[in-house]
Amino acid sequence: MKKIYLEELKNYYDKEIEISGFVENIRDLQWVQFVILKDITGKVQITIEKSEKKNKDMVELISNLPLESTIKVKGKVVENPKVKLNGMEFIPEEIKVTSVSDIELPFNYKDPSNVNLDTRLDYRFIDLRNEKNLLTFRVQSTLVKYMREYLYNNKFTEIHTPKFIGTASESGSEVFEVKYFDRKAYLAQSPQFYKQMVLASGFDRVFEVAPCFRAENSNTSKHATEFTSFDVEFADINSKEDVMNLEAEMITYGLSHLKEEMGDKIKEVFGIDIVVPTLPFPTMKLEDIYKELEERYTYKVEETEKNDLTTEAERLCKKLAHDKFNHEFLFVVDFPAEKRAFYHMRNEKGILQGYDLIWRGIEITTGAQREHRYDEIVKNAKEKGLGEDVKFYLEFFKYGCPPHGGFAIGIDRLTMLLLDIPSIKESMLLFRGPNRLNP
Amino acid sequence: MKKIYLEELKNYYDKEIEISGFVENIRDLQWVQFVILKDITGKVQITIEKSEKKNKDMVELISNLPLESTIKVKGKVVENPKVKLNGMEFIPEEIKVTSVSDIELPFNYKDPSNVNLDTRLDYRFIDLRNEKNLLTFRVQSTLVKYMREYLYNNKFTEIHTPKFIGTASESGSEVFEVKYFDRKAYLAQSPQFYKQMVLASGFDRVFEVAPCFRAENSNTSKHATEFTSFDVEFADINSKEDVMNLEAEMITYGLSHLKEEMGDKIKEVFGIDIVVPTLPFPTMKLEDIYKELEERYTYKVEETEKNDLTTEAERLCKKLAHDKFNHEFLFVVDFPAEKRAFYHMRNEKGILQGYDLIWRGIEITTGAQREHRYDEIVKNAKEKGLGEDVKFYLEFFKYGCPPHGGFAIGIDRLTMLLLDIPSIKESMLLFRGPNRLNP
Repeated sequence: MKKIYLEELKNYYDKEIEISGFVENIRDLQWVQFVILKDITGKVQITIEKSEKKNKDMVELISNLPLESTIKVKGKVVENPKVKLNGMEFIPEEIKVTSVSDIELPFNYKDPSNVNLDTRLDYRFIDLRNEKNLLTFRVQSTLVKYMREYLYNNKFTEIHTPKFIGTASESGSEVFEVKYFDRKAYLAQSPQFYKQMVLASGFDRVFEVAPCFRAENSNTSKHATEFTSFDVEFADINSKEDVMNLEAEMITYGLSHLKEEMGDKIKEVFGIDIVVPTLPFPTMKLEDIYKELEERYTYKVEETEKNDLTTEAERLCKKLAHDKFNHEFLFVVDFPAEKRAFYHMRNEKGILQGYDLIWRGIEITTGAQREHRYDEIVKNAKEKGLGEDVKFYLEFFKYGCPPHGGFAIGIDRLTMLLLDIPSIKESMLLFRGPNRLNP
Repeated sequence: MKKIYLEELKNYYDKEIEISGFVENIRDLQWVQFVILKDITGKVQITIEKSEKKNKDMVELISNLPLESTIKVKGKVVENPKVKLNGMEFIPEEIKVTSVSDIELPFNYKDPSNVNLDTRLDYRFIDLRNEKNLLTFRVQSTLVKYMREYLYNNKFTEIHTPKFIGTASESGSEVFEVKYFDRKAYLAQSPQFYKQMVLASGFDRVFEVAPCFRAENSNTSKHATEFTSFDVEFADINSKEDVMNLEAEMITYGLSHLKEEMGDKIKEVFGIDIVVPTLPFPTMKLEDIYKELEERYTYKVEETEKNDLTTEAERLCKKLAHDKFNHEFLFVVDFPAEKRAFYHMRNEKGILQGYDLIWRGIEITTGAQREHRYDEIVKNAKEKGLGEDVKFYLEFFKYGCPPHGGFAIGIDRLTMLLLDIPSIKESMLLFRGPNRLNP
């Protein structure tokens, strides 16, 4: 039997069908029982007339059923303009209980405003039942689906690179260590080295959606020890602008199709309009941003801090992008090379060919044209004092490698910003931080 | 400038274009130089007449260029029936070297037959340049794309569950341990617990494509310490048959679209025809398989071994499926409950509601209807002697959870079988085993 979702019920008026879901509410009145059934798509009222003899068993069953239990119901859906919920009701013939909930829930997930966030995360499997949370991850899935679709349409190959690595790459201090039989392994902080490796092997355009692990002992609303990264890397570019353009197009494609598919639902549940950005996204040099932040909003920082975006400057970029460009996104370029990874390319003048992308005041991406020339990348690594740990990586560039670039987007952060969720702890299905490994 | 791939060249005859790729071969004759350029899609011959004065710089450049270097070439592609390679040649105006390869490669990747597998894996970034290897991962990406598409079309949500877990679940001995700040964490062997958890939260149909980690110290052609699992789980099923049917449909959808998109290329490079299976897939009880293996092929095993498929029986299932059903797939059902995980459902008679799927003599999937009733799952866990480690998981079922089931497919193993690759070490981009963490 084909599954019928509650949002589709209007297509089945007066037909014998079966529906299923969680019992959200029961009103047990003198002459009638009203059961609110919900599934991932919607709700329906089930009406049981107590006076009808054939309903006797059902009435008794419902009288004793804890809320949140799951049931399967056979019967008919009928139009009834008097019913507030969608103007319809379901008249059951048979109800089967498929699981019984404990009578007392750990907390009221429907109104979590007074519930401590840690309690909610301890019982995340209950917390996720909240309508907003259920929708959050359907939205995330849909956005990722369309970002992937954009890449498939542009000849990208999806890859799966190992998370176990033999050496603590990039920077030893932030890497998790694994007991690997009689030796040590480490968990990859990103697929950076391997997505570049395959371009040296002749793959032309690749992406990966996979977990990354960062051993940062920090508790902020933006950081997690494990998160899902959407990584893109492609060959035969002429400049970092090729990378920025592709990223902007991919995001725009994703948001525009997300809006088409789920815009109404998002508006209904979150009260939020999905804003589809215009192309191209505006770009500013780091130096000019500090100038304008001072001129426009009297925001001043020490010269020594101007080699990167401060958290406050990042936040103000939301206002700046809006006021100057009427846009929500802002590419920031011309960071000093010494603040960035050794594998970012620098041009003849030593200027870094990398960028950050700021959305609504938070950095969602670092991207760059990479250094693909063996002699140059070896030189850059030495300059940063990197030795044995990156030796295997440097080898990748010894036997020919085309010019290339790429970027990474954390999809949990993207989801947080998209739906105006206060913390990444709630825009991940199951948050992991220094103090959280459960459930 | 839009990137032009070499397989598309026939659409660009006599137009000024730019192409790029790796220099696969150079023949430097008295009057002419022939350069074979390759990219991910194909090859083309570049012809440089030495007598033409304007070619002087190019001729010198090519004379000194190591093979495997990467170049960008401006010029025209012209038809020339005399050229064996696709009946065309590229007449260059300008060649730019984008990276220079070392003169000597670690081994000849074009003919790796005499090269030790470990050497090839040590230099996997070179090994991947082999035409078969490049195609292997494009095929994998395309198959996964269509399996996902099938699920999207059927209202599935993609999820991302944590790989860090707080307790060594399922079976402590095969779990990797991570130094997690001042405590220990473990790496998830599968998303099993969490994909079930979200169904208890009200998600209806979910899937995940992500790495799994297994601390098995075994060196076989089928095992790896890290692999990519394609996990599916969905609610409101009536039996394990619902799960088996969905899996069979998904695989058939994937293979049929893969054949359409890449069948010719696979045939050309691997000499293999993609076989699209017919629906439904045949099913046999474990007990009956042993009966028929004995009757048909005089394969006998001790009674004590008949509670699971032996490796040899698994292998013979290829022949059995072919001879009995003219099919490549075979579902095996009715395994004894004591051999299987506690979360698999058993029916009233105690018979396990799980299955294995065998393809070409190798198990590619274990699937099942799950036990979703709190009291039953608690009882099953106790029976298996599982305590504190699964306590958090048992909680998921306390507050209502619909009947559900699911399965997992290792996509590396799937790729191995699809393309008749001798070992999983070669059907993974970068293999990880007890003795291999590099590159």
